[in-house]
Amino acid sequence: MAEYDQDQTIGGTTGSVRVDFEPIGRRGTCSCRQTLLQCAHDLGIGIVATCGGHGTCGRCRIIAVRGQLSETTSVEHELISLHELENGVRLACQAMPLSDCIINVPAESLTASQRIQIEGLQATHGTDPLVTSHKVAVSPADLNDLSADDQRILTALSATYGIKCTTVDLEVARDLPHILRSEDWKCKITTRGAEVVAVGPWPAPTLGLAVDLGTTKIAAYLLDLTNGETLGARGTMNPQIRYGEDVVARLTHALSQPDGTKELADEALAAINDLADSLTRDAGVNSSRILEVVLVGNTAMHHLLLRLPVAQLARAPYVPAIAGSLDIKARDLPLRTAKGAYLHLPPNIAGFVGADHVAMLIACGVSTASDRVLAIDIGTNTEVCLAADGRLTTVSCASGPAFEGGHIRDGMRAAPGAIEHVEILGNEVHLQIVDDAEPTGVCGSGILDALAQLATQGIVDAMGRLSADHPRIARHQNMLQFNLVTPDERGGRSALSVTQNDVRQLQLAKAAIASGIQALLQHASLDPSQLNSIIVGGAFGSYIDIKSAIEIGMLPRVPLERFTQVGNAAGVGAKMALVSDSARLNGITLAREARYLELATAPGFMKRFVDNTRLAPFTLQGG
Amino acid sequence: MAEYDQDQTIGGTTGSVRVDFEPIGRRGTCSCRQTLLQCAHDLGIGIVATCGGHGTCGRCRIIAVRGQLSETTSVEHELISLHELENGVRLACQAMPLSDCIINVPAESLTASQRIQIEGLQATHGTDPLVTSHKVAVSPADLNDLSADDQRILTALSATYGIKCTTVDLEVARDLPHILRSEDWKCKITTRGAEVVAVGPWPAPTLGLAVDLGTTKIAAYLLDLTNGETLGARGTMNPQIRYGEDVVARLTHALSQPDGTKELADEALAAINDLADSLTRDAGVNSSRILEVVLVGNTAMHHLLLRLPVAQLARAPYVPAIAGSLDIKARDLPLRTAKGAYLHLPPNIAGFVGADHVAMLIACGVSTASDRVLAIDIGTNTEVCLAADGRLTTVSCASGPAFEGGHIRDGMRAAPGAIEHVEILGNEVHLQIVDDAEPTGVCGSGILDALAQLATQGIVDAMGRLSADHPRIARHQNMLQFNLVTPDERGGRSALSVTQNDVRQLQLAKAAIASGIQALLQHASLDPSQLNSIIVGGAFGSYIDIKSAIEIGMLPRVPLERFTQVGNAAGVGAKMALVSDSARLNGITLAREARYLELATAPGFMKRFVDNTRLAPFTLQGG
Repeated sequence: MAEYDQDQTIGGTTGSVRVDFEPIGRRGTCSCRQTLLQCAHDLGIGIVATCGGHGTCGRCRIIAVRGQLSETTSVEHELISLHELENGVRLACQAMPLSDCIINVPAESLTASQRIQIEGLQATHGTDPLVTSHKVAVSPADLNDLSADDQRILTALSATYGIKCTTVDLEVARDLPHILRSEDWKCKITTRGAEVVAVGPWPAPTLGLAVDLGTTKIAAYLLDLTNGETLGARGTMNPQIRYGEDVVARLTHALSQPDGTKELADEALAAINDLADSLTRDAGVNSSRILEVVLVGNTAMHHLLLRLPVAQLARAPYVPAIAGSLDIKARDLPLRTAKGAYLHLPPNIAGFVGADHVAMLIACGVSTASDRVLAIDIGTNTEVCLAADGRLTTVSCASGPAFEGGHIRDGMRAAPGAIEHVEILGNEVHLQIVDDAEPTGVCGSGILDALAQLATQGIVDAMGRLSADHPRIARHQNMLQFNLVTPDERGGRSALSVTQNDVRQLQLAKAAIASGIQALLQHASLDPSQLNSIIVGGAFGSYIDIKSAIEIGMLPRVPLERFTQVGNAAGVGAKMALVSDSARLNGITLAREARYLELATAPGFMKRFVDNTRLAPFTLQGG
Repeated sequence: MAEYDQDQTIGGTTGSVRVDFEPIGRRGTCSCRQTLLQCAHDLGIGIVATCGGHGTCGRCRIIAVRGQLSETTSVEHELISLHELENGVRLACQAMPLSDCIINVPAESLTASQRIQIEGLQATHGTDPLVTSHKVAVSPADLNDLSADDQRILTALSATYGIKCTTVDLEVARDLPHILRSEDWKCKITTRGAEVVAVGPWPAPTLGLAVDLGTTKIAAYLLDLTNGETLGARGTMNPQIRYGEDVVARLTHALSQPDGTKELADEALAAINDLADSLTRDAGVNSSRILEVVLVGNTAMHHLLLRLPVAQLARAPYVPAIAGSLDIKARDLPLRTAKGAYLHLPPNIAGFVGADHVAMLIACGVSTASDRVLAIDIGTNTEVCLAADGRLTTVSCASGPAFEGGHIRDGMRAAPGAIEHVEILGNEVHLQIVDDAEPTGVCGSGILDALAQLATQGIVDAMGRLSADHPRIARHQNMLQFNLVTPDERGGRSALSVTQNDVRQLQLAKAAIASGIQALLQHASLDPSQLNSIIVGGAFGSYIDIKSAIEIGMLPRVPLERFTQVGNAAGVGAKMALVSDSARLNGITLAREARYLELATAPGFMKRFVDNTRLAPFTLQGG
């Protein structure tokens, strides 16, 4: 968040401020005398304005997440309810930015919907859920059969299905007498281990919810626990983003405010519950049909959601309060599920290698039995795991937000209009743009491509210096930039470029990842060529051109067929843990066996990191 | 409660009302023009009045639980805080009863303290608690040891003590990082099965709370879980009594009011928490030292406390929602204990045979292995269990409140002033009075003695008719009564008597118990002479003269040495289940093996009941 806080006064002195449109992640400099609709238009972001911005249609609703906007207008008071106004809802055609700000543009206000990556690889996996439902018919209570209601169903489960349950959840027990009698003593009993976790009418679906709680995005999946089928998938922005974009900013907020952790927990919880509501509504069922939840996230997201202390996580040696898996009642958070449902949280490995990485390993089938496999989950924080010689070793690399468009002048996420692939042929630039829309900005894979192409063609040297010797090189505010789209090609709007500063950001990100991989290989005395498989995951990792990543030395140069790009593998792993008890146990085993290698204490790490900023092929010794 | 509701208008028409002084249970008719202090004095109840009833000392505080009193006076507004006034606190020297009412006289307002039976038999039992504490020292978290805090203590428990825990309670985990660091990585870990339920400084006591939640009284015991020692015992009135004296009245309240169950649960919970606070304060510790709670009560008390539905318990066939044992977090009620502490509730057997009876069986060592043992727990409801031929069979008898002084004109509980034993020698009556105080009323054992003596001497016939042919027989309000204490002997106050109506009440109670015992013996084809042991428990059962009970045919005529009278066996059983996991498991086994015999469906029960109203020796065929 530093980039916002520092510039907080810019609006007052220069008349221009920095506006961050989320969740698409497009940032830009805007004038304080422009409406947000104009700002968005200038940046190339399509906000719905049926009336042409005249303040009559009320379609261009946005939410002010952070920063100061101009006073609400009479038009807004007419078109927006008081309750909405209190929650920061504004019309983009009316509101002007008075300070640096973060603006949330809801999906319904965007002309094109964002590509939210909620589909991961479709791993084949068995369905052996811990939570199962059974139709049970019991004899009515009368003077000849005076058994208690709980004993009646426990006995029937044992007699009919051989299921030995010993207890009924107390909240479920409170409904049991009514349901048994209203359903004429025939009902659906849902069990989890030795516990009855739900009683209801038969038939009724037995659903589960898998959640990937990311720092930026939250993905949720509704599954049928009886067959493992995914009934729906939805994604949303993590609303905690108002307190900072990365994990460190969130931890800082939690520690600096008396109720900081609770605020963050409540934000995430509300978003997850909204996703659960939407998914069940789409499926035409009530959220009380959700009988189990599996949630994965990085260790900080995990701790904040559970309101666990984070002081020890925010400072060296960055130790989690809880690494073991947890099974708690979903109602204790509270999640909107069946009353007796559990929330299972797979284990974390370390302070910066969380359950989301464990879920990726589950999804990709990585285990101690894997033969020299490297699994990389690229994000603001990049986790890497090496499976070799019966051991699992992980590192965490502070790769920063560059690959997600952060700290990049024209950066954005992979939303419509994002330049996602770049090819430079002489003076020509060929671009691939998400949804073939008008270009709005550059997402991570586009920046990576551009950098690799610039390096191959000598437009940028190994030290990362842009050469002035190319027709597309321009100078803007005393800094060189390579124009992917020139002002002419954009009809007079600002160029979309890779700036000298963007190259520096990429170098740092690249160096972090390469250094982590090197440390793991050196620790295991392996040469990159000995790797049989490299799995690249994460929202960014699944779209990048592996050749480009090899070109700049971020990834080792091994034959391309050894690489596999997976989508949201963490989400897939969460789904597997939801429908398969053996996958869940596998995650617990993985986390117990995995060793965490702290890069800060690895010998010569700083030198290696600096060497790795060079744009040169990956070597074991560094760039 | 019917006796109060029916007479609700008496005060208005006759100027006299019925006042029930609790918890001593002394009831009497009082004038609406008398203060409650005078009423109490006339009934022989000693209420503290240092100033002689002039309204200056403020010591005679009472609480109006039910019914209408005169307006508060200026004296009361001076001596009682507004908050107290709102909670029904009055001065007995100021308030006059305007309708039938229930008055709670707190212990500090009584001149003599009530004998609250909190000590039961001191059974010898082993200490093998489920909850144990261990001193654990772990290495500090630093860059060479990055384990999460939970893994750090789980590993130490395993390495140091061979204890395999897998999880830390979430609430405990929230405190874990702070405690580990503030205690220099040495602390006390308390485990329960595979779960860590507390983390704190070392050393510190590991305490448990055993609670016997009776319909009338609540007894609580504070124990040291490390050695099984009882550190303190306290009793109090069950404040639910304001909603009715017996189980049926409580269930009726729960079902007739929208929040009825919650009101009753809150009343009981507050009283239990107050007892826990008092016990820990007496022991000089904080209630957060309580790391496990075991609570026993009858099935209705159990259901109301847990806010389980009771509609099916209140109507035939009287089925519990939950009979199985429960282990829930004490904080979920919430009980004031350590954050991670559990509440264990032993199993119920049937709608009218609850966990308190199971606890009695635990305490008395009754099991399927017992050789022809009869265990009787006498109360408003009397539970009887027969162990014979490898089987446990129980019945429940609606014996009514007569033995606790209810529905008896001069009845009261075994408080100071209660006539507890009676011997009639010709025209003389020899009385034994609790605490050798001035006689105030007659408690259950006294009434039983009186009836046996009257029967033996032919003053009452087998049909229960009092004969007019004795100098102590008097007629009052057109009803015969036998004066235990004449008005002359009481200095002009009303006689203390056994009335014709009292005899009828005793006949019903006696018939209920005898019929239950007969049904059990017939079901097992046993003659009473074949019983090797008869255990008699309950607050009343531990004080009665067994000879008297045999004389009127309530208990079978077997040699006296085969009888054992135990005190609050349910409380002892709760304590055993608290400090001994094997005792707890024994309770679960007992409840599973016990069969419940419904008397209403036993052949010829009504005839047997009527026959048993005869005051004649116990036979298998009935009186």
